[in-house]
Amino acid sequence: MAGDDQRALQYEQTLMYGRYTQELGVYAKEEAARLREEGGRRRSVTERSRSLELLEYDKGRCAKCRICTLRCQKFLISRVGEDWIFLILLGLLMALVSWVVDFAIAICLQAQKWMYGGLESNVFLQYLAWVTYPVVLITFSAGFTQILAPQAVGSGIPEMKTILRGVVLKEYLTFKTFVAKVIGLTCALGSGMPLGKEGPFVHIASLCAALLSKFMSLFGGIYENESRNIEMLAAACAVGVGCCFAAPIGGVLFSIEVTSTFFAVRNYWRGFFAATFSAFIFRVLAVWNKDEETITALFKTRFRLDFPFDLQELPAFAVIGIASGFGGALFVYLNRLIVQFIRKQKTINKFLMKKRLLYPALVTLLVSTLTFPPGFGQFMAGKLTQKESLVTLLDNRTWAKQGIAEGFDYIGNSQAWNHPQVNVFVTLVLFIVMKFWMSALATTIPVPCGAFMPVFVIGAAFGRLVGESMAAWFPDGIHSDGTIYPIVPGGYAVVGAAALSGAVTHTVSTAVIVFELTGQISHILPVMIAVILANAVAQSLQPSLYDSIIRIKKLPYLPELGWGHHEKYNIRVEDIMIRDVTYITLNCCYRDLHDVLLAGHLKTLALLESSESMILLGSIERAQLQALLSLQLGRPRRLEYLRDRATAEKKRLSMVSHPGSEDGSQRVNQEVRFQISTEESTFSPTPTPSMKPLKPALKRPSVVDRPTGIPIPTIHVPASVCSIRTVWATNKCGEGRFSRT
Amino acid sequence: MAGDDQRALQYEQTLMYGRYTQELGVYAKEEAARLREEGGRRRSVTERSRSLELLEYDKGRCAKCRICTLRCQKFLISRVGEDWIFLILLGLLMALVSWVVDFAIAICLQAQKWMYGGLESNVFLQYLAWVTYPVVLITFSAGFTQILAPQAVGSGIPEMKTILRGVVLKEYLTFKTFVAKVIGLTCALGSGMPLGKEGPFVHIASLCAALLSKFMSLFGGIYENESRNIEMLAAACAVGVGCCFAAPIGGVLFSIEVTSTFFAVRNYWRGFFAATFSAFIFRVLAVWNKDEETITALFKTRFRLDFPFDLQELPAFAVIGIASGFGGALFVYLNRLIVQFIRKQKTINKFLMKKRLLYPALVTLLVSTLTFPPGFGQFMAGKLTQKESLVTLLDNRTWAKQGIAEGFDYIGNSQAWNHPQVNVFVTLVLFIVMKFWMSALATTIPVPCGAFMPVFVIGAAFGRLVGESMAAWFPDGIHSDGTIYPIVPGGYAVVGAAALSGAVTHTVSTAVIVFELTGQISHILPVMIAVILANAVAQSLQPSLYDSIIRIKKLPYLPELGWGHHEKYNIRVEDIMIRDVTYITLNCCYRDLHDVLLAGHLKTLALLESSESMILLGSIERAQLQALLSLQLGRPRRLEYLRDRATAEKKRLSMVSHPGSEDGSQRVNQEVRFQISTEESTFSPTPTPSMKPLKPALKRPSVVDRPTGIPIPTIHVPASVCSIRTVWATNKCGEGRFSRT
Repeated sequence: MAGDDQRALQYEQTLMYGRYTQELGVYAKEEAARLREEGGRRRSVTERSRSLELLEYDKGRCAKCRICTLRCQKFLISRVGEDWIFLILLGLLMALVSWVVDFAIAICLQAQKWMYGGLESNVFLQYLAWVTYPVVLITFSAGFTQILAPQAVGSGIPEMKTILRGVVLKEYLTFKTFVAKVIGLTCALGSGMPLGKEGPFVHIASLCAALLSKFMSLFGGIYENESRNIEMLAAACAVGVGCCFAAPIGGVLFSIEVTSTFFAVRNYWRGFFAATFSAFIFRVLAVWNKDEETITALFKTRFRLDFPFDLQELPAFAVIGIASGFGGALFVYLNRLIVQFIRKQKTINKFLMKKRLLYPALVTLLVSTLTFPPGFGQFMAGKLTQKESLVTLLDNRTWAKQGIAEGFDYIGNSQAWNHPQVNVFVTLVLFIVMKFWMSALATTIPVPCGAFMPVFVIGAAFGRLVGESMAAWFPDGIHSDGTIYPIVPGGYAVVGAAALSGAVTHTVSTAVIVFELTGQISHILPVMIAVILANAVAQSLQPSLYDSIIRIKKLPYLPELGWGHHEKYNIRVEDIMIRDVTYITLNCCYRDLHDVLLAGHLKTLALLESSESMILLGSIERAQLQALLSLQLGRPRRLEYLRDRATAEKKRLSMVSHPGSEDGSQRVNQEVRFQISTEESTFSPTPTPSMKPLKPALKRPSVVDRPTGIPIPTIHVPASVCSIRTVWATNKCGEGRFSRT
Repeated sequence: MAGDDQRALQYEQTLMYGRYTQELGVYAKEEAARLREEGGRRRSVTERSRSLELLEYDKGRCAKCRICTLRCQKFLISRVGEDWIFLILLGLLMALVSWVVDFAIAICLQAQKWMYGGLESNVFLQYLAWVTYPVVLITFSAGFTQILAPQAVGSGIPEMKTILRGVVLKEYLTFKTFVAKVIGLTCALGSGMPLGKEGPFVHIASLCAALLSKFMSLFGGIYENESRNIEMLAAACAVGVGCCFAAPIGGVLFSIEVTSTFFAVRNYWRGFFAATFSAFIFRVLAVWNKDEETITALFKTRFRLDFPFDLQELPAFAVIGIASGFGGALFVYLNRLIVQFIRKQKTINKFLMKKRLLYPALVTLLVSTLTFPPGFGQFMAGKLTQKESLVTLLDNRTWAKQGIAEGFDYIGNSQAWNHPQVNVFVTLVLFIVMKFWMSALATTIPVPCGAFMPVFVIGAAFGRLVGESMAAWFPDGIHSDGTIYPIVPGGYAVVGAAALSGAVTHTVSTAVIVFELTGQISHILPVMIAVILANAVAQSLQPSLYDSIIRIKKLPYLPELGWGHHEKYNIRVEDIMIRDVTYITLNCCYRDLHDVLLAGHLKTLALLESSESMILLGSIERAQLQALLSLQLGRPRRLEYLRDRATAEKKRLSMVSHPGSEDGSQRVNQEVRFQISTEESTFSPTPTPSMKPLKPALKRPSVVDRPTGIPIPTIHVPASVCSIRTVWATNKCGEGRFSRT
């Protein structure tokens, strides 16, 4: 299994993320060769099936029944091939998966709380229980993923990004990876670590889509179409986000922004359809399970509608946006720094690589120790799960003490934020700082996990901090005309969450996700402004988290042009191309080759048909040419030639009855002829093939194809040229790229 | 001016929409030729500027100051060239335009109300005032647009769609069109006809962007880049929708769906940024004008948040979606039917074409007569403006009599829906039916107007109808577990509005627009389900309204592949290409040409270099070839030849001193040589140019470019071949397309 993966793209297992070692160019060449081979095979299959069809109609009356049943079968298969059936199945499946995973996570978290609560008499036992539980879960998750499918590690969005740009990493779309990802994710999130489920869900949805297409291809041929499957993968990414947050619109937009460079609008409805269906089923399951009374948002807020915020509060929102931009860039940088730091420490790295499960266990131990509620956790609301802290942060009441009321009475989970000795501001600041590095560290653990949700919570906390400060500063609100509209810190939390997650992922659609998550759109303008500012700051400082991971993992991925850099509009191809291209022609002799090799400074030489027609046939590497020349004209070859001549002389002397025609035909067979043509053009080998000009693809027998009366000039072609052709035929899938040595 | 437009694309003015008569293929050829010419010119300009730059650095010390100032200037210009400055300017400008237009429309509508209210004593005078006012305004709008810029007529989205696919209709992006569109739109909407401002705003925003780029190009060269300008146009479309509805997210999505097939995600932030800024300024203006207390949604709703709808209501929402799908298709069909019907009635059409302003006046008269409040208008809430009816339709109270309360007391505008004799259901049905055909008819008036808003209102009314029926059917709500949650008909209105407008425009993003317009997202799942169902139904029945208008106007537009038709995945190029392509070569003789013309059945013949190399040089039309042959070898030519020979004979007899070399050189000059090459390759005309093989672009002086020793065979080339070249050179921008005759 491991060998299978490593063959695919020379994947190298490292401590945290894993890394690819093959260059994209080399991979592309191999892939192109493979595809060409496959294409030939597939074509022959389709031709066979077409002829079978024709045969059926020839058989006449007796086969009428069979034809009828065949047609029915075809109709049914074509129905199964309809996109919407596939999308509904995908949506249904993903909603079920999402719900089951959520359910399992909730049970895991409840079990921890129950254990922790039952041991209240002894703090040490309590600590043991609090710490052991997540360590065991994370270690299991890491080990399980490691053994079953190491590809399941991490978020999966970087991989999907790579796949949707054309490099299909098949090993990421297997059933094993699916199982590893789902079970690993459940355990990882059940541990209560600051990890997210959004990225992995994009991957799980894509896995579902790939497996479903494979399954459906048993019924009809349409599912074998590769480009269609990629379109379905794009829809699946939307489904992943959609059913994770019950946010269909935000899911579609987020998946577009994160995975595509060019988006086909005809795919748009697919994403919407599948994501809506999935989100719908996901929420219906909650209603049926009596968790909710009806379908509402996941983190419902209840801000006032008539006066959501004052115009004069906008600078505060802008500040949140800009600060989130810096914070987001810092998060990405910190995450990369941790990975690079541990990779550099060779001895530690070697030790940890041997004891693979030690690193996850250590990180978990550190994080859970710090969040232990009776310990340091009391100053940072450590006993709240991620979901609980988000719900409390989005609360529409004000926590800070205000002029009118005698402080806010903390009910339920909100109590965690209220420490008798410490101000709520200190708690918030500690929460933000601690969670910030904890999340950056926790996302490097080799388990299936995302970073979206932790970042989202940190952003919400930061927004809340600003909001509470504003509320403390202006107890009666800013609005001056009569009515008192107190400031709503929950609204700031919404803005902060959208801004920070937008900055880390470099997306604007987190704004939409926020609206769908909270079920309120009243803060649309502050959210949009903050998200755009955060993006502007973060994009100018760091790559997005997904691009950063792509670089860390060295995924085979072409980087994209930046945005807004207008210099890029003024660069022409002529500005970067080399003009004095050295070339060799089919009929150039040894002297020419020699001159070229001596004078040229290019790594690759162009091979032309002739210096008149200047038709590019392919390219040959300088080193290959040199090797060939030395093979053909080097010392051993010359010795061999002398030996051959000596033997031939001997033979001639021994038997004079047979004329020496055998030797000549052998030399002809040494040549490997290549033709730029479709497979239909049958070219019978002629005794002097090297003399005829090469023929492009259009060549067909036609009306005016008369034998021309042009006398074909005969030139001596040395043996070395024939060998050049041989090399070039193996080299033909190379891109016509010339790079300076 | 009119001649200028007609030259552009053979635009033909018709009664309603206007029509293009030139085929896209022909247009493409001409455009390609023009671009090639321009490309040459621009290249020489850039080369000149580059050389100037180099000169500057040569001048040494004394010019240091100048270089410094030049650099400063360059820096400033590069700043001006930054996208975000352009986008902010665009957003600001459009927000101002939108606000001013809205303000003017509000004043116009108020004036009508004031006139109508002042004449309450006399019904006849009241009727006259009610009818004359819109007739005058619409007639003025139609006349003004007609005179200044006929391109301003209609929505503008079809044109933007065409432009964003590559066919730049320059006449649609002029300052005249801008003025005509803004003033025409204000008058048209001020008349109170069921017309919308959304489509025209997309056009106005694009006009703004185009004019702004033109203005900015005075400062820096970056604005001359065509591809950048098209990217900016795409962002402008988003701004148009964004500032029209104060819906930035919906605006971006709607503009993507409506105008693009492939969307570059790097454009995404541009749209978001500009649309957000524009929507923000637009709403801030309202706050500063004391219309609003703070920034909120345009049509704010106040549905309850905790239990927006019951799961069991979903079938009703689905019914709204499906019915809206049929309704949307019917609307598009009706709109096209009206146009086609009047186009067919030759005599009426001719009469109306002469009296151009009669048609708008008649339609306005009919519509405003029917909505006259004391007349038929009382049964269809005729006295409400579009905006007022939308606000009342989205009301969160129930109109129908319920079991508990003694009916709803209609306050303010809602009173219009309450007729003493007639049930509210009858009023709603009449409103829907009458507005439906009125909107379809009114959008054919040749004034700047859109159909989105009228359709939106009709959809809201339909939704309200279903909602009120549900409320009457289940007075205590459907929910059975204890708490009574009465049904909210306003929610149904939201769903209906999104579904019908989605069906007419074939977009899903109307859902997002609805959330942004109402400021509530609680009904997200019903809205999404209804919109998707409506789209599925409408797309299978009719093209979208914009595509329908594109067909009516015959805009130069390539139709797109449908969605979800999996058969399209199985068609290969080989399935539709012709295999037995007839071709002629450069060195074929008269007999070959004759044979080809007799035997072939293709309209266009391929011209190859030779039958060996099979290099395609271009194509020639059969008819042209025939004409050439008859010109060269026909009776008049032969007579001329004989005459020429006779004169030559005479000349030879008269003066023997000069040898006849002049005649030969003249024949050579007749030839027009064509070369596939860049402009750098200078080709000196040789005495026997037809003998040398054509050279492709790569041809450069280089290391191995030695003179080959191949003897070039000489063949007699008849005069006809030279002429073929002449034709082909004029024909060279043709696409290598072969169509059967």
